[in-house]
Amino acid sequence: MAVSASSWQGLPPRRRATRDTALAYWSQLTDRNDGDARRAGQPQTALGPDPTTIADEASLRDAERYGANIENYIGTVKLPVGVIGPLRINGVNASGDYPVPMATSEAALVASYHRGASTCARAGGIQTAVLSTGLIRTPAFVFDNLMQSGLFVEWLTTREDALRQAAEATTRHGRLLSIEPAIDNNIVYLVCRYTTGDAAGQNMVTIATDALCRYIAAADCPVPLRRWYVEGNFSGDKKASSLGLLTGRGRKASASVLIPADLVRRGLKSTTEEMLAYGRVANLGSLLSGQHGAQAHFANALAAIYIATGQDAACVAESAVGFTRMEARGDDLYCAVTLPNILVGTVGGGTGLPSQASALALMGLPAENPADALAEIVAATCLAGEISIVAALSAGHFTRAHRKLARER
Amino acid sequence: MAVSASSWQGLPPRRRATRDTALAYWSQLTDRNDGDARRAGQPQTALGPDPTTIADEASLRDAERYGANIENYIGTVKLPVGVIGPLRINGVNASGDYPVPMATSEAALVASYHRGASTCARAGGIQTAVLSTGLIRTPAFVFDNLMQSGLFVEWLTTREDALRQAAEATTRHGRLLSIEPAIDNNIVYLVCRYTTGDAAGQNMVTIATDALCRYIAAADCPVPLRRWYVEGNFSGDKKASSLGLLTGRGRKASASVLIPADLVRRGLKSTTEEMLAYGRVANLGSLLSGQHGAQAHFANALAAIYIATGQDAACVAESAVGFTRMEARGDDLYCAVTLPNILVGTVGGGTGLPSQASALALMGLPAENPADALAEIVAATCLAGEISIVAALSAGHFTRAHRKLARER
Amino acid sequence: MAVSASSWQGLPPRRRATRDTALAYWSQLTDRNDGDARRAGQPQTALGPDPTTIADEASLRDAERYGANIENYIGTVKLPVGVIGPLRINGVNASGDYPVPMATSEAALVASYHRGASTCARAGGIQTAVLSTGLIRTPAFVFDNLMQSGLFVEWLTTREDALRQAAEATTRHGRLLSIEPAIDNNIVYLVCRYTTGDAAGQNMVTIATDALCRYIAAADCPVPLRRWYVEGNFSGDKKASSLGLLTGRGRKASASVLIPADLVRRGLKSTTEEMLAYGRVANLGSLLSGQHGAQAHFANALAAIYIATGQDAACVAESAVGFTRMEARGDDLYCAVTLPNILVGTVGGGTGLPSQASALALMGLPAENPADALAEIVAATCLAGEISIVAALSAGHFTRAHRKLARER
Amino acid sequence: MAVSASSWQGLPPRRRATRDTALAYWSQLTDRNDGDARRAGQPQTALGPDPTTIADEASLRDAERYGANIENYIGTVKLPVGVIGPLRINGVNASGDYPVPMATSEAALVASYHRGASTCARAGGIQTAVLSTGLIRTPAFVFDNLMQSGLFVEWLTTREDALRQAAEATTRHGRLLSIEPAIDNNIVYLVCRYTTGDAAGQNMVTIATDALCRYIAAADCPVPLRRWYVEGNFSGDKKASSLGLLTGRGRKASASVLIPADLVRRGLKSTTEEMLAYGRVANLGSLLSGQHGAQAHFANALAAIYIATGQDAACVAESAVGFTRMEARGDDLYCAVTLPNILVGTVGGGTGLPSQASALALMGLPAENPADALAEIVAATCLAGEISIVAALSAGHFTRAHRKLARER
Repeated sequence: MAVSASSWQGLPPRRRATRDTALAYWSQLTDRNDGDARRAGQPQTALGPDPTTIADEASLRDAERYGANIENYIGTVKLPVGVIGPLRINGVNASGDYPVPMATSEAALVASYHRGASTCARAGGIQTAVLSTGLIRTPAFVFDNLMQSGLFVEWLTTREDALRQAAEATTRHGRLLSIEPAIDNNIVYLVCRYTTGDAAGQNMVTIATDALCRYIAAADCPVPLRRWYVEGNFSGDKKASSLGLLTGRGRKASASVLIPADLVRRGLKSTTEEMLAYGRVANLGSLLSGQHGAQAHFANALAAIYIATGQDAACVAESAVGFTRMEARGDDLYCAVTLPNILVGTVGGGTGLPSQASALALMGLPAENPADALAEIVAATCLAGEISIVAALSAGHFTRAHRKLARER
Repeated sequence: MAVSASSWQGLPPRRRATRDTALAYWSQLTDRNDGDARRAGQPQTALGPDPTTIADEASLRDAERYGANIENYIGTVKLPVGVIGPLRINGVNASGDYPVPMATSEAALVASYHRGASTCARAGGIQTAVLSTGLIRTPAFVFDNLMQSGLFVEWLTTREDALRQAAEATTRHGRLLSIEPAIDNNIVYLVCRYTTGDAAGQNMVTIATDALCRYIAAADCPVPLRRWYVEGNFSGDKKASSLGLLTGRGRKASASVLIPADLVRRGLKSTTEEMLAYGRVANLGSLLSGQHGAQAHFANALAAIYIATGQDAACVAESAVGFTRMEARGDDLYCAVTLPNILVGTVGGGTGLPSQASALALMGLPAENPADALAEIVAATCLAGEISIVAALSAGHFTRAHRKLARER
Repeated sequence: MAVSASSWQGLPPRRRATRDTALAYWSQLTDRNDGDARRAGQPQTALGPDPTTIADEASLRDAERYGANIENYIGTVKLPVGVIGPLRINGVNASGDYPVPMATSEAALVASYHRGASTCARAGGIQTAVLSTGLIRTPAFVFDNLMQSGLFVEWLTTREDALRQAAEATTRHGRLLSIEPAIDNNIVYLVCRYTTGDAAGQNMVTIATDALCRYIAAADCPVPLRRWYVEGNFSGDKKASSLGLLTGRGRKASASVLIPADLVRRGLKSTTEEMLAYGRVANLGSLLSGQHGAQAHFANALAAIYIATGQDAACVAESAVGFTRMEARGDDLYCAVTLPNILVGTVGGGTGLPSQASALALMGLPAENPADALAEIVAATCLAGEISIVAALSAGHFTRAHRKLARER
Repeated sequence: MAVSASSWQGLPPRRRATRDTALAYWSQLTDRNDGDARRAGQPQTALGPDPTTIADEASLRDAERYGANIENYIGTVKLPVGVIGPLRINGVNASGDYPVPMATSEAALVASYHRGASTCARAGGIQTAVLSTGLIRTPAFVFDNLMQSGLFVEWLTTREDALRQAAEATTRHGRLLSIEPAIDNNIVYLVCRYTTGDAAGQNMVTIATDALCRYIAAADCPVPLRRWYVEGNFSGDKKASSLGLLTGRGRKASASVLIPADLVRRGLKSTTEEMLAYGRVANLGSLLSGQHGAQAHFANALAAIYIATGQDAACVAESAVGFTRMEARGDDLYCAVTLPNILVGTVGGGTGLPSQASALALMGLPAENPADALAEIVAATCLAGEISIVAALSAGHFTRAHRKLARER
């Protein structure tokens, strides 16, 4: 099997995005498609993408602005945004009625979250709290043997202040909370845990940890360091992991609500008993199939809010773990979610892009600890979604809702 | 702690999205923000989102079109798209040079994938294959006791044809491949595995499985069925799971490339030996921290391609698992990735939305099995990204690249 | 750090165990200890083991018999055995009242299982079933690249009968149920699943799979095989694994009982509500800490029965996974356990050793499918133990029982 | 299905084991078997166990001694013990040449470990270290809601000294190292980590934690405590868990050795390259099948040493996790194992029973930190076994060795 010859030379990476570079890329891409079509004897227009849907006027005008977030820029993709609310929250950092923008192309999703949110609001609102914050980077250090690993860790404990200074010198907002060594014979991982201010902080902790590693490599460590890496693939960055589930990565937030029996019936069209019965089956399903935690569809809320508000959507991979629990309180239903790995910020990343900044502003986050408030809103939205889907599945309405909203359109 | 009173009554869900409903929502949301600002004694404009960034003219014009994919529609969020390529593939379903659109706001990401893609192209291209396809739904059936579960499964084996007919009657493109029962005492899960044509097929299999369940509930099953659910939270839908890792969910694709030693040095600024040394540390990091599989950052490619091409971004949660492996072939480097849970389609979901359809068209997928080809392109892009990040981490360039592209902008 | 010189030359492995070889080993070992003591200036007797506790007369007399199960034989270690019962079972393979011998040195353990067993007996007995049997070996085959893996699996499908014949030619009792390939790029694992008659069958399936592999290596496979291994460390042999949890390895058995509310109070000193409340906390604890399944202490019953009856105690590592579930039936309590990886036999391994054979005989297993009956007894014993410990923990008696029986002796 | 009537009334639990109670139990059990045989029309002797193999004279004589470790005592089961060595260790706590007693009925096992040990000795010995010690209990506290959990943890931080005093007042040897709260909404688990002196310490930490809990329940905690449990099934006690893998439970020990290329060939009949090639396949097998860590057969060494030396064999379930790694050092082979959850003691449990005490004494453990030395010996034995089995599998000798020693006997 040989790859067919192709006249297309590919795109050179260019740093600075402008209207002109974007259009130049389109020209190359269109030529290529036309060429392919010609070779295949097909009409060219049938194959070609419509540049105006991606390289529209506003996207071309803002090319330089977008170019700070991406390379080889050709324009923007547009995702529909729906709003749910009031999401009534009575939390440590978020307090009040919030509209939540969700970007998705899955029909029925926003309607389902909205139903859950309305029910929670009518129940008096959702308690929320950020339980811990701490973004992890885990550099790795390789030695010749076990004894050297031990001596290295011993030496490290004598350099705590210097290590902190080296890391924190790189950042105005980040603080190094702790360094926890994990030794596997001749390899030592250091779990470096940081607070990151109002940012999600992935770059911040990479740069700080790099400085920490360089300090170690240059210092008078009594054992020879064979190799070091700023990340030993241990931190769970963009990966669901047991470490993240256990110790948290980013912000760990929890949310809960007590729904009166009557509201379960009227608002959710189910009963406390039926929802608990399904919960038992769903919990066992999680365990049997080997999931990290037990929940129904955190990922839907996470992806939709992350995309709408300029967060890193790849972090859905690590954020979409945690626990949904339900218990009876008399005839009423107590529901809770806990998400140990929420990765959100109100500055940095894509939060400053035009539509994303608007979506953030639309929520009306508090001036103090806005990222913590956002994490609580994310957890509360997940709670609303869990309640709604469990109600639908327990009462046998799940498929009908999807068929109605998704198929018969 | 009591939630503060709020004059905002929240959004009623409305079915049919139009220019007018979108603007009506904005009016409500703006009023709310203004009210909050007034109560807080702040100038109103400072808080308010800019509606024109979301509810721009094109988004308002296409409101009905977007409304088929979302409820409570208020406009669109715009994510920057960059292109990498040539991604030279020599696969079972994809064959040729492909540009790949990636939507992200993480600076340096597209540049890194582009570097990996270019290196693979110069190495002669990437082998790819879809190894299996099969989207899972797992309904659950609850009985009084263990013996009834056993009798139920025995009875099921006598109804194989009828079950298939019930499921397949609901769909033109889906086929029921197998039904595998998993018994846990009085609860029986049925792992129902389907092909879904060119669609990702999540709705398709839900509807088919619902029909299958209703057939069972109505049939002459000799034991009383206490409860049934169309999904027992066992399928790994939007959740990383061991089941998905082991048996696949959606499309399982693999990609590999052999990179000559010289190209490792010139194209990736590392060496085969250094990359393998890092690979050992990274692999151990994955295992120690309890990840599903072992890889560096599949999630980045998955999120970026899923968003650009109208796939369900929430599926990143389940897709971002799998394996990256490297081995020496003499001085050359053999690299491979396997992703068991790719969820992509070329029809359905958000693939028909304007910019997403263009992004799909831009790739020039083959007419035959385009979704399989797309799955192979996704795997090949992941491979390019793994190679690039491992090279950067092994050679100590990772932080510098991020600082340069992300910070000094 | 240098290892101190030692005059002890170590033990040469000898094949045939006899009274004389055992005594010769003791002589060497005693000389060594005396020498160490002399060098340390200590009295020799204080350090020395008492040979008569291990190399007692019966152990010396039966040296050749034991020697078939072990090398470098020096005698036997004695573990105390307690009996619980009646374990009243109403199962597919086991039916009647069984005494169960348990070997352990953990005080309170036998008493706790006995309490659970008595309560279940008074509740009318335990339902049990073996849900599946299938012992796995997973040979691995390494190729040059992805395409060769694909061609290999394609070729395999044409050799199904020959593969089965090659495997089954090595055994009178084993049957090859299925071969399921798992491809990761250039490596192919074959999940080979066997029934093993009344034996646990670990050796049986190793030998059969070796023959299967040798057939493949010698046959006309159209792609070159770089390497093959009889076990790719994929089968979960003596390791807790998701594969075992999902698909079973060995015998998968389930057991359940319905305990009237009154008996929960009188027999278990707890209440249905309290036990369910603890069950929710314990289930969450399992999930949060990343266990395979969710149960309290299967390992205690497994280790105690495996040791008493001559099973392979190392298999506790893989057997001690699964699920314990409880639900209310009105005021009564329904309890269930499912263990997917029970490794037991009534022939082979240590089952023919003198005391182990007596322990097996003591149970009075049925003549038909005795190993299946034994697996059901194991599951039922686990159930009894789960009920007893959950009752103790829910009612706050756990520590007291341990203190009383373990400390105040 | 009804359980058949049985005249057997079962065993009443009796506290104090004596010669007479043991014989009384035998009488009951024998009557039962005879009765069953009579009812089945079979000769009675064929069914009956031989009491003299279990209730031998020494076991009857020592009934009271054994009775401190077990209830319903009927005698002892005898497991054959083989010895490997010299296990040459150059460790932090163990240093010298050690014989290691292993109790197993799996033929070929002792021979294989002995081969590995001899090779390591000829390579100059094994480096070992205990990297951390800390036995965990994790009580759980249940509140009405999220906010109360938060207030509880805040309050706890003000009671650190009192909590430590309450726990440590119950034990002479245990020390409370740390209390780490893990909040899941309204449930709080406290990871209480202890050192346990020379004991394994499971009972010790249960009793200490019970006291800690009772202090909390009686103190002036500002929020109402709904329920508390001394163990929330979070600690990984007798269960493989991610928590144990990550943070250690009991003693975490590591061992490594550098084997010259020539010795790999002569002593292990393989090559460095072949062993590394198998290592890659085995590592992937571990990951694909969802094991906790990656190793070949730790369980074999653990079960054999635990049983021989009076440890709790049920702990094999949690101990048999960890990592085996190999890397080339030029042509030589560096091998390492790390076991984070070794549960051993030199006092307590079954260590004082006659034959077990002898087996412990036989090793000649140092007077200082003997349990740490034992943990290092366990790790070193695991290393020897991993090296031997990997060599056998990589060179294709695995099946032959098993067939020879296990079958042709």
